[in-house]
Amino acid sequence: MTTPKYIAGNKDAIRQFIDRFDVFLIDCDGVLWSGDHVFPGAVSTLEMLRQKGKRVVFVTNNSTKSRQDYQKKLEGMGIPASAEEVFGSSYSAAIYISRILPQSHPQLKQKKKVFVVGEAGIETELQSEGIPYLGGTDPAYRRDITPEDYKFMAAGDPKALDPEVGVVLVGLDFHFNYLKMCYAFQYIRRGAIFLATNMDSTLPSAGSFFPGAGSISAPLIKMLGGQEPMAFGKPNQAMMDAIEGKFQFDRSKVCMVGDRADTDIKFGIEGKLGGTLGVLTGVATKKDFLEGDVRPAYYVDALNDLLEVA
Amino acid sequence: MTTPKYIAGNKDAIRQFIDRFDVFLIDCDGVLWSGDHVFPGAVSTLEMLRQKGKRVVFVTNNSTKSRQDYQKKLEGMGIPASAEEVFGSSYSAAIYISRILPQSHPQLKQKKKVFVVGEAGIETELQSEGIPYLGGTDPAYRRDITPEDYKFMAAGDPKALDPEVGVVLVGLDFHFNYLKMCYAFQYIRRGAIFLATNMDSTLPSAGSFFPGAGSISAPLIKMLGGQEPMAFGKPNQAMMDAIEGKFQFDRSKVCMVGDRADTDIKFGIEGKLGGTLGVLTGVATKKDFLEGDVRPAYYVDALNDLLEVA
Repeated sequence: MTTPKYIAGNKDAIRQFIDRFDVFLIDCDGVLWSGDHVFPGAVSTLEMLRQKGKRVVFVTNNSTKSRQDYQKKLEGMGIPASAEEVFGSSYSAAIYISRILPQSHPQLKQKKKVFVVGEAGIETELQSEGIPYLGGTDPAYRRDITPEDYKFMAAGDPKALDPEVGVVLVGLDFHFNYLKMCYAFQYIRRGAIFLATNMDSTLPSAGSFFPGAGSISAPLIKMLGGQEPMAFGKPNQAMMDAIEGKFQFDRSKVCMVGDRADTDIKFGIEGKLGGTLGVLTGVATKKDFLEGDVRPAYYVDALNDLLEVA
Repeated sequence: MTTPKYIAGNKDAIRQFIDRFDVFLIDCDGVLWSGDHVFPGAVSTLEMLRQKGKRVVFVTNNSTKSRQDYQKKLEGMGIPASAEEVFGSSYSAAIYISRILPQSHPQLKQKKKVFVVGEAGIETELQSEGIPYLGGTDPAYRRDITPEDYKFMAAGDPKALDPEVGVVLVGLDFHFNYLKMCYAFQYIRRGAIFLATNMDSTLPSAGSFFPGAGSISAPLIKMLGGQEPMAFGKPNQAMMDAIEGKFQFDRSKVCMVGDRADTDIKFGIEGKLGGTLGVLTGVATKKDFLEGDVRPAYYVDALNDLLEVA
């Protein structure tokens, strides 16, 4: 296995590194910021890359925000970005449902609707692709289960279960509850396709970890006897295909930048990108990058190490 | 592997079967009833067994009801029973926490409290063993997560996390939500012992399946990187040990009666009971019993086949 090249403090190496690539796919949390804290020099580094004519794409597994929401978040943190530069797992899922799934699953012509377990970001992205959905942030699903629910769901009564639902899409849902678990399970049992925006087990926040989208899918997987959903977040290559489809790049001229070996770096390696850059401002340690199963081609201490080229 | 003996319609075989045992551990759902429907002859069969001097114990994985609640449920369905004859997974967990855990885990002397994810049945059984708890049905946990929750939980602030919590006990919770997932995870990350009443992935109801206690534990297992809880329901032998501890029987004179091979029958076989009786009024089919990995020693079509002895 190759040893990652440490390029911080080496102007020539940094210049050669930057020159090799046209596009930088950049993970955000742990690379640009942690929690509410933007890392020093992060904004200047992005500016430097753009001035050199590089395309920057912000790639996030966050399913709760649409591209527009995420662009606002970036802007709110002082990071200039357009919604076009943002690629999230909800958008990736919406593209797959609207463009790929109908070809492989003709039954979806009759069953066009998506039952959503998740927040507004998923809904916005489904809307942007013209996909009808139910569930999601609808307050009708934010309540306790009743005896009628059991009866109607068990009977497959259209009063409870919409016969046009052909897909269940699960993302991070801060309003997850027993009723939603029941609905999602009943739809999948009746033949709906089980998709997940991403499978991150945890979500870093406030210096600790909280339940991620993968933990929202977990009860369904258990109930389905181990059946896993198709998932779209990093490191899943459905996301890479969607990014490539949109930006039409030469993969050999693309570099993935991230703080996690098992998602970000793996995403870049399995996507056969020209390179991967690990940063040490997030989850992975130097030891992870140097001795782990998944190793970046390059690593630096922090993204702003790339500024030394100026 | 032995072939289960079909004894329905064979008076001699039934008489010999009944004579072999002093105690019948009886699973309820799928044996005595399905949903709200009590099977014909179920009550008479229990009466016949009692008249012959047999002890009957109702063994249930249902964690939402205390023994008293379950006795009322039995009575409401026209099945005479005392609370003493009921053995549930919540009671089994409570006994373990009060009597076994303090010996193996001396740190629990300082951390006596249990954080409960579940319904009133767990609370009642913890109370009956004098174990202090929080969470459970407390309305304070039936709400959305707030920014303060993230902050206080991440910091381990006693305003959010009670420093005396040493155990997290997860059962079926119809009021499961994101906030409870966070609390349970944060306590376990900080060293609390992870226990589950039972691991049934689904709950049969109204002729269909709904999320069971195992699906409530699933997000935590995912977040903990695969760490499984110690569980008390059938087929876990902690439950058998607790039942034996209470009723002081000779296992060779005990028969487990149930409709599921992988929980009920397995429970009896691994508990080295004198026998197991499968019934075909619930989940398992004749094929399951005759060709499956786990096979009962005897089987009948329905519990009331035992009445033919009269």
